[in-house]
Order: sequence, then structure tokens, then C-alpha cells
Amino acid sequence: MVYLTRKEHFNAAHKLYNAAWSIEKNEMMFGACANENWHGHNYDLYVTIKGEPDVNTGFIMDVKVFSKIIKEYAVDKLDHKNLNLDVDFMKGKMCSTENLAMAIWQEIEPHLPKNVTLHCIKLYETARIYVEYFGE
Amino acid sequence: MVYLTRKEHFNAAHKLYNAAWSIEKNEMMFGACANENWHGHNYDLYVTIKGEPDVNTGFIMDVKVFSKIIKEYAVDKLDHKNLNLDVDFMKGKMCSTENLAMAIWQEIEPHLPKNVTLHCIKLYETARIYVEYFGE
Amino acid sequence: MVYLTRKEHFNAAHKLYNAAWSIEKNEMMFGACANENWHGHNYDLYVTIKGEPDVNTGFIMDVKVFSKIIKEYAVDKLDHKNLNLDVDFMKGKMCSTENLAMAIWQEIEPHLPKNVTLHCIKLYETARIYVEYFGE
Amino acid sequence: MVYLTRKEHFNAAHKLYNAAWSIEKNEMMFGACANENWHGHNYDLYVTIKGEPDVNTGFIMDVKVFSKIIKEYAVDKLDHKNLNLDVDFMKGKMCSTENLAMAIWQEIEPHLPKNVTLHCIKLYETARIYVEYFGE
Amino acid sequence: MVYLTRKEHFNAAHKLYNAAWSIEKNEMMFGACANENWHGHNYDLYVTIKGEPDVNTGFIMDVKVFSKIIKEYAVDKLDHKNLNLDVDFMKGKMCSTENLAMAIWQEIEPHLPKNVTLHCIKLYETARIYVEYFGE
Amino acid sequence: MVYLTRKEHFNAAHKLYNAAWSIEKNEMMFGACANENWHGHNYDLYVTIKGEPDVNTGFIMDVKVFSKIIKEYAVDKLDHKNLNLDVDFMKGKMCSTENLAMAIWQEIEPHLPKNVTLHCIKLYETARIYVEYFGE
Repeated sequence: MVYLTRKEHFNAAHKLYNAAWSIEKNEMMFGACANENWHGHNYDLYVTIKGEPDVNTGFIMDVKVFSKIIKEYAVDKLDHKNLNLDVDFMKGKMCSTENLAMAIWQEIEPHLPKNVTLHCIKLYETARIYVEYFGE
Repeated sequence: MVYLTRKEHFNAAHKLYNAAWSIEKNEMMFGACANENWHGHNYDLYVTIKGEPDVNTGFIMDVKVFSKIIKEYAVDKLDHKNLNLDVDFMKGKMCSTENLAMAIWQEIEPHLPKNVTLHCIKLYETARIYVEYFGE
Repeated sequence: MVYLTRKEHFNAAHKLYNAAWSIEKNEMMFGACANENWHGHNYDLYVTIKGEPDVNTGFIMDVKVFSKIIKEYAVDKLDHKNLNLDVDFMKGKMCSTENLAMAIWQEIEPHLPKNVTLHCIKLYETARIYVEYFGE
Repeated sequence: MVYLTRKEHFNAAHKLYNAAWSIEKNEMMFGACANENWHGHNYDLYVTIKGEPDVNTGFIMDVKVFSKIIKEYAVDKLDHKNLNLDVDFMKGKMCSTENLAMAIWQEIEPHLPKNVTLHCIKLYETARIYVEYFGE
Repeated sequence: MVYLTRKEHFNAAHKLYNAAWSIEKNEMMFGACANENWHGHNYDLYVTIKGEPDVNTGFIMDVKVFSKIIKEYAVDKLDHKNLNLDVDFMKGKMCSTENLAMAIWQEIEPHLPKNVTLHCIKLYETARIYVEYFGE
Repeated sequence: MVYLTRKEHFNAAHKLYNAAWSIEKNEMMFGACANENWHGHNYDLYVTIKGEPDVNTGFIMDVKVFSKIIKEYAVDKLDHKNLNLDVDFMKGKMCSTENLAMAIWQEIEPHLPKNVTLHCIKLYETARIYVEYFGE
């Protein structure tokens, strides 16, 4: 069993804002992250799969195909977007890095080939903050 | 003469959009960067000054004071903000990295002590794109 | 269950020196690291917790509060200090990266909120050497 | 139990080419990686061991000795080499990052002292692709 | 005047070998870099241009167009190639990083628009070695 | 004319302390950096030379020889040392990054071959603070 990780990235706007709360409570809870006019990040996304290397290729999966799946089902829907307004799979959710990582897992997992298993979604919001989700 | 550089960072939303143009022309010129709902970046800002080290301290400038000036006149006005809507010194300008670097120079330069000279504003929009402005 | 990591850093002096041994044995065992006049490092500290995202915030923990705990109970006691002489929780221990990581776990763990679990202390001594401690 | 990681690196040429296939099939499967005249990489190698810190040194293992073992049994055989032609332990195997990581485990593991356990070989082929092997 | 830099990368094989010299002299001069079976690198390429920002776009040049020129005239000819054997503009030259940076300048410079000036080719061979060429 | 840069590093202890001042004034001027028991850093040192590539090698200078000079005249005197107490060429000077960079220039410059010119000493004290010295 070998683990293979591909790094991708996307740039997006978001805010942390709970519509059930007052502006004051949002500011108290989220500080500058609640700025009504949005802010944004360069997100770094690491996707890890595991599997057995194929005898003929030495690959657990062709990294170009892997990258294409990540782009089609996650990056293309997130890059240069507003996470709160433009992303169907984030509708109705708080746009925290935690929730975003979990949602990206849901989007990518069904499209991977059967001989590999999705192991981890690791998402950097800034160079000093990241979350990891292992699917459970 | 020694050059001293301090790195700071800020996270902001923006879009590239020229109000004098149609939506179609904006999309043609700026592509995904023109997304009306904004996108955003983790900007890395490097500010470089030059001067002679003081005999008593060995410093051309106390880096804590230097950092405080960068924060007060640039980072605090940019961090967790919308560059198009929230930043007084970007009003009426295209929010390109080029224009932002030049504007940051204008904001910081008057507040530096007389014994140092502002040398360079270096601004990373992403890990693969940066601009430098030397004041002329 | 989601894992959240916050990176902090501190700059400190230390030496590797076992007081029960002769100077010669210390030099033989620790080489340049035993220099009696100390040396030092920029330590990078990654603290990882795990928990369930809160429905209202999307957070497993507010990263500002998390950062504040790391600073109060670890970074503020280590930054710009001599690890052998100035740090109460390293008294009587060898100042290896291994022991430092384990000690940081002991300092931080009791102060975290009940709904999250400390998962890992990862400590870089240099860009090429790091240790991880998972609490057992 | 503490985990200790040492980063090393090596520069090597390779190609992805299955001698049982036609040139056309190799190009179809491996694209530019099948270039008959080779290409190459700066590989970053992270080796992680685990063990209990020694009471007298605070180390699970002297990192200089650890580094020397990695160099003798892996890096010196790989650095400035052609992975397909020059490396005895890659003979007859596809030169994928997966296979290389597994082979490096086999080379290093028997030479580690009994009081530590090899935990992980992590190998970066590029800044955006890496594999991890945990020995099973 | 603002300076804009775009980072690209390519992976290539090469060797340092002067055909006018004996194998022994090549090994004496270039050490492991003269390995007849080649070695390779992940090259990081930074291309810097300077110019005046356009009033309507805020750009000195559209970074997508800039990136496309770098790819067409440099990266696509170098990536996954053997620098000694496969690259027309390196024929008959020693494959040092110095010569490669100078050759990349010659390839890119004629294809840039008239309103910008090529300022610098910065080329990393490894994370610890890079060269810069300013065209004179 | 091509510029060649080599990165080296060293780990050292220091403090900022002016012996002509009281403890109180030192603390007021240098804050935590004046801690009498020292603190320390992982310094990253970039040395840049310029020259014409040799026709036979393609090098402006053999980077192994260049690295050896930096090590012999700078790194070996600084690594795992106390900059205030152990380094002959820092005696009687404030141990600021500015002064250290200027001193490293003085140590290295006389030992470079005649066909290259020392261009820059760039010294990182932390990932967010660096100085550059160009010899004048």
C-alpha cells in the first residue's frame, strides 16, 4: 500500500457569516472574517489516495488523471469564485476551512477509480492554518 | 549602506473590473478575475528600506518599529478587506497587483524616519506572480 | 472528525549537554551542539487538534483562541529564551527536540476546551529535522 | 513514543518506460515522462523513525548517525545517477516514485539500530507530487 | 515603472561534459555532474519584465499572455527533455545553469510585446543554487 | 555577466546588548532580544557573485569551490556558535543582522578568485526578516 498526494490550488473569496445571527454577533464571533464585503485566500489543496502500485506502470494511479479529477470536481468549481455565493456544494453551509475540506471530499471521492481509496483532504487557508479530513 | 526587508501578509478579496467596459469586454480581458462576486488572495508583502547601521544598535531601523509602520499604514487597511470597496487609497484605481504595490509605496513612504530610504515594495499575489516597485 | 493545525514559531538558544558527563564525553556525544556558549534555532511549531465542526460556526475551534492558548502556554515561555536556563518546564531535562515536543504537549493539553482533542505536536528544529509527538 | 524525521535530497535522471510495450504504447501511457533521452528531478526524501527518547541524550537516535545511514544506503546510490541504469536496487522495476519509495525503505530499514522503528518514507518527485510508504 | 515576475518550472536531464576533454578530465572538473548516464533537476524559472501599468487594465502585461510566451518559447522546449540532446538552442553549449539562463533570455526576449522590457532570467537548479542574467 | 548565488545556513545564539548601556536601557531598546541568557536563530545565508561564464565549463565559478570558500571563511566560524562570544570577526560589534552581513562580506571577499566579483550578502535572521549588503 502506497499513498500518493497531489497538490493543487485555487484563489477564492469568502466570509464567515451566520445568517441566523445579528451583524454584531457575527462580528463578535468572526471578527474581521465577517467583513460584509468579503475577503479571500490562496488555498492550497493536497489530495491523498492510497493503493497498490500497478505492475506495468509502477503507479497506483496516473497522476495526470488524478489531477484532472481534482480539477474537474473541485478546483474548477472553486477557483476565482466566491465560496458563499458561487459554489453549489457549499450552499447553506458555513464557509469554514473545516466545512470546505469535508465538502471537497464528498465531491472528489465518487469519481476516483475503484482500485484506489481516498485517504485525506488537506486544505491550507493560509500558510499557518490548515485542516485535514480523513472521511470519518 | 545596508538593505533591510520585512515580510508581512494580508488576505483580501478583489476583482479586476473596468467600469467603463461592458461585462463581456471585462470577461474577455480579465477572464475569471472579473467574476462579479469577487475572488481573493493571501498577499505576501515585502518592504525594503536602506540606510546606515546605527553605531549603538547595529540597526538601520528597529524592525519592530518598521513592522508597526507597515501594519498601521498598509496591512491594517488591506487585511480581511475588499480591495475594490473597502480601501480608501485604491478608490478609482484598477485593483491590479501593479497598482496595489505602487499605492502601498505612497502610503508607507511618508511615515518612515528620515535616516532610511524606502527602496522596494514587493508584492506576491500568488506563489507564482509578484510585482516590484522601486518608486520611479 | 476534522483535524485543525496552527503553525507558530519561536527563536531560542540551547545546548545539548548532560551535566553527569565530562566535557569530553559531551563533545563526543553531541559535537558542536555541546558548545558551552550555546547556539540557537528558529523553531517552527505545528499544533494539531481534532474535533467535530460546530454547526453554527463551521469551526472545530476558533483559530484565534487556539493560537492564543499556544502562545500563552508555550510560545511566550520559549520565544527569545534560553531553553536550558529560562524555561521552567524544561528544567532537569535534556534540551533535545524530542523532549521539547513532549513538554510542549504537557503544557498545552490541559488548557484546550473539552470538545477538542490534542492530536500532534510537530516541532521543526531546522528545515531538515523535525519531531512529532502524539501523546503516547 | 516520538517520531523523528530527517530530510535529504538527491538529483537524478529517469524515464518511465515499460520495455514490454511498444514506443507508441509507452508514449500513450507515460506521455513526456517516456522521453527516450530521459528527464530528471530534484527529489526530496523524508525518512521518519519512531522510538523512545534516551534518558541520557534526549534523542531517539543521533540525527547525524541517522543522516549518515540514509546517505550511505540510499542517497549516495541515487544522487547524480540515472535511476533506470545506475541503481542496483531499481533494476528490473518501473522507475515510478511509488516503486522508488518502496525500494528506499528496503535499503534503509535493515541498517537502523534495533531501538528505533522505520515509520515512513516520503518522497517528493516535484513540489506538487509526493508518495508515502509505511512498510506494508 | 513596475517589475512583474512569473514563476514557471520544468524537469529535465542533463550532464556537464566537455567533449574536447577525456573522461578523466571531465570527472575531475565536474565530479558526479559528469555521470555519462545523466542526472536531472526540477528547474524553477523566474522571468521578470518591466514597464508602465496600462490605465485601463492596471497591468504592465496580462500575466496569462506572459506565461504563454514563456511556455511556448522556453518551458515546452525544456520540460521532460534532455538538455544536452533534445534542445535546439543548447546545441554545442555546455549545459551549465549559467548558459541555460542566457539561452532562455535569447529565446524569450524577441517575443515580448514592445511596451515591456525583459529585465531578468532567474533560474534555480536546486533549492540552494540559482543564477540570474540581466541581458548584458 | 551572470550572477550566481549559493545558499548556506548556520545555527547560532546571540543577544542584542550594548555594554555601554544599563540593563534597563538595553531592555527598552532591544526588548526580548536583550535576554541576558541569549536566544538564537537558524540563519540562511545567500552569497551572490558575478562574472563571465568560462567557455570550457559554462561556469562563472565551480559551485563546489564557491561553497567551500563560504564554509571555510564564514559558516564554519558561525555555525553552532555564540555570535557575541565565539566569533573573532564580530568582537566589539553589535550582533545585529546588518553588522553580521557586512562582516561576512569582509571575511569572504578576499578569498574569491580574481575572475569573479562579490555582489551581495543576503542574510535571513527569520523567515520574515533579512538584510542585504552590496559592499558599499
